[in-house]
Amino acid sequence: MTLQMEKRVSVGRPTSEIFRRRRRALSELLQRKKWDAYFFSGMADLYYLTGFMADGFYGLFTAEGETWLFASALLAGQVRDSTQGCRLVVGRRLSKALRSLMGKHGLKRVGFDSEQLMYRLGAILVREGLRPGENPAAELRAVKAEEELACVRRACQLTADGIEFAKKRLKPGMTEKGLAAELEMFFYRRGADKAAFDLVVAMGPHTALPHHLPGPSRLVKNQPVILDIGCMVGGYRADLTRTLYYGKIFPLFRRVYRTVQAAQHEGIARVKPGMTGGRIDAATRGVISRAGYGRYFIHSTGHGVGLDIHEAPWIRPKSGSVLSPGMVLTIEPGIYLPGRFGVRIEDTLRVTDTGSEILTRPSKGKM
Amino acid sequence: MTLQMEKRVSVGRPTSEIFRRRRRALSELLQRKKWDAYFFSGMADLYYLTGFMADGFYGLFTAEGETWLFASALLAGQVRDSTQGCRLVVGRRLSKALRSLMGKHGLKRVGFDSEQLMYRLGAILVREGLRPGENPAAELRAVKAEEELACVRRACQLTADGIEFAKKRLKPGMTEKGLAAELEMFFYRRGADKAAFDLVVAMGPHTALPHHLPGPSRLVKNQPVILDIGCMVGGYRADLTRTLYYGKIFPLFRRVYRTVQAAQHEGIARVKPGMTGGRIDAATRGVISRAGYGRYFIHSTGHGVGLDIHEAPWIRPKSGSVLSPGMVLTIEPGIYLPGRFGVRIEDTLRVTDTGSEILTRPSKGKM
Repeated sequence: MTLQMEKRVSVGRPTSEIFRRRRRALSELLQRKKWDAYFFSGMADLYYLTGFMADGFYGLFTAEGETWLFASALLAGQVRDSTQGCRLVVGRRLSKALRSLMGKHGLKRVGFDSEQLMYRLGAILVREGLRPGENPAAELRAVKAEEELACVRRACQLTADGIEFAKKRLKPGMTEKGLAAELEMFFYRRGADKAAFDLVVAMGPHTALPHHLPGPSRLVKNQPVILDIGCMVGGYRADLTRTLYYGKIFPLFRRVYRTVQAAQHEGIARVKPGMTGGRIDAATRGVISRAGYGRYFIHSTGHGVGLDIHEAPWIRPKSGSVLSPGMVLTIEPGIYLPGRFGVRIEDTLRVTDTGSEILTRPSKGKM
Repeated sequence: MTLQMEKRVSVGRPTSEIFRRRRRALSELLQRKKWDAYFFSGMADLYYLTGFMADGFYGLFTAEGETWLFASALLAGQVRDSTQGCRLVVGRRLSKALRSLMGKHGLKRVGFDSEQLMYRLGAILVREGLRPGENPAAELRAVKAEEELACVRRACQLTADGIEFAKKRLKPGMTEKGLAAELEMFFYRRGADKAAFDLVVAMGPHTALPHHLPGPSRLVKNQPVILDIGCMVGGYRADLTRTLYYGKIFPLFRRVYRTVQAAQHEGIARVKPGMTGGRIDAATRGVISRAGYGRYFIHSTGHGVGLDIHEAPWIRPKSGSVLSPGMVLTIEPGIYLPGRFGVRIEDTLRVTDTGSEILTRPSKGKM
């Protein structure tokens, strides 16, 4: 099989100055939050702060602006090649290394994110005096800088192009899995890093399962198809869902589809600086509830997206996440009638100074 | 782009009787290990025991043979469709659900795997009286049953075919990333589920980094290329590494290559029932140390492979894992000269009644 390689997307790797800038912002935030230091174990956090990520790679970042990275001998070469301005601790037992650093530098209030590491490691940290506490990098990462937005924009545009590609390819007999594979190849050929998550291609009654994974089912006439897809560019992800219908639409499907569409419009209209995730969720959910489908909308209205596919801000019931310009998030209401069909419509948006901009639009002209 | 779809691999989904058989084996093991019940959170464990896996899906399995599965409303439909003979608890707070079940059924000694869940969840379990303890499913999963071996065999064979495919495709100017994408598509077209892990394609000096991820580097003449690849069939993974050389081999490369090859032969020769992972590691490592490259062999000699890419048995220094027939594992020594080049050779083997069988052999005849 020969690939006609197209020009790769020219979204550059961040410079070491960018990582230094992010670490400065972190150390200021640590000072404000009264942490002496914070221990990071999440891959996206570490990539954001250092330019490197791997299983078994950790970092201690102090309010004074010092960084120690912990890696096995297996990873040391890659860490040295990929990071700048950090100290590297290779192959030492983590508990001992932390104890000696925290003692020597008088680090007392040291936090870690209890949802970013396994219980076993967390228990070791707690024994060394660290404590679970709100992740300060999540707050920094929620607002995207220019170099991040360039990647997000491109990922969103390629993803929207993927929907146009899939529409042209859809035909009876095609399997969910086959279409998912074609989409992955499409993303790769257009210059994306890879798919942003396990792509959802659901046909017929599978559309009623929000997280259905593509299987051997084949498209037959008069069926809905849900495509929940995304690609990654420069590490940044896009998230886009369209519900298509192959054949003659029946009245109930049309009613449900229009309800979801109206709910999404309502949600998107609320996206602006100062609004909370909880209020956007309530407005979106309200449209579906008033139409009588409230109990069939079984997930959150949306979520932030970036280096992780789900990150702050959180658009769900009671969420206190307050939107600010530069945040990137999804609005994705859905209605799922068990055993029958489901409809979900999702876009990725950027919060602007006055409202929002939908990023998941196809590129203009020839694909 | 059109895919010429070949016949999909006909490796069936396990029947519900197979999952019941596995849960019976688990309950016997729980009785022997004096657990009243064990809480599972690892995706591969849950798939092995129930046929379903997802983020946020958990199960409590008792020594008496009862199973409770915990899922959000979002997943409930899929869990009902995918599992049989289990009770489903939907949308309840996990701590409350566990407290009431453990109280009602008198479950006192209840364990969980501290490396399969996040600290936050583990801390909740510990508050409810559960305790970290050795994962009994790891022991069951290490020995593959017939229906599992069928998948492993096919995954290994397709992976070996992938190496033959890559050898034909290798040419100057090809990027690491491009070759990795072609291999993923090859696996898909040949009927695999997907790649078994992020494929490693390393060219030139990148071969000295064992976990290098494919980038934009292009193949030039007189360079080594490491392919560490695998595909997944029916959920089961294969793992295979070859070090190729494009151009004229120089003497140091030849010496290092032959050392790694001799070490792998030594390791493979030791694989048989009753042998420990530690002794295999020592024998393999000994060959490399005696050749003077001990400090450049910076990882384990091997690992079990199955639903997870790394699982029991563990083939590393001091490992007490004892081999038995039906286990599947890798032997993968390597030597990495920083900034210069690396060599790794890896196969996936099955432990037989008397020794081992290498599974990563290409299929015969036409690919």
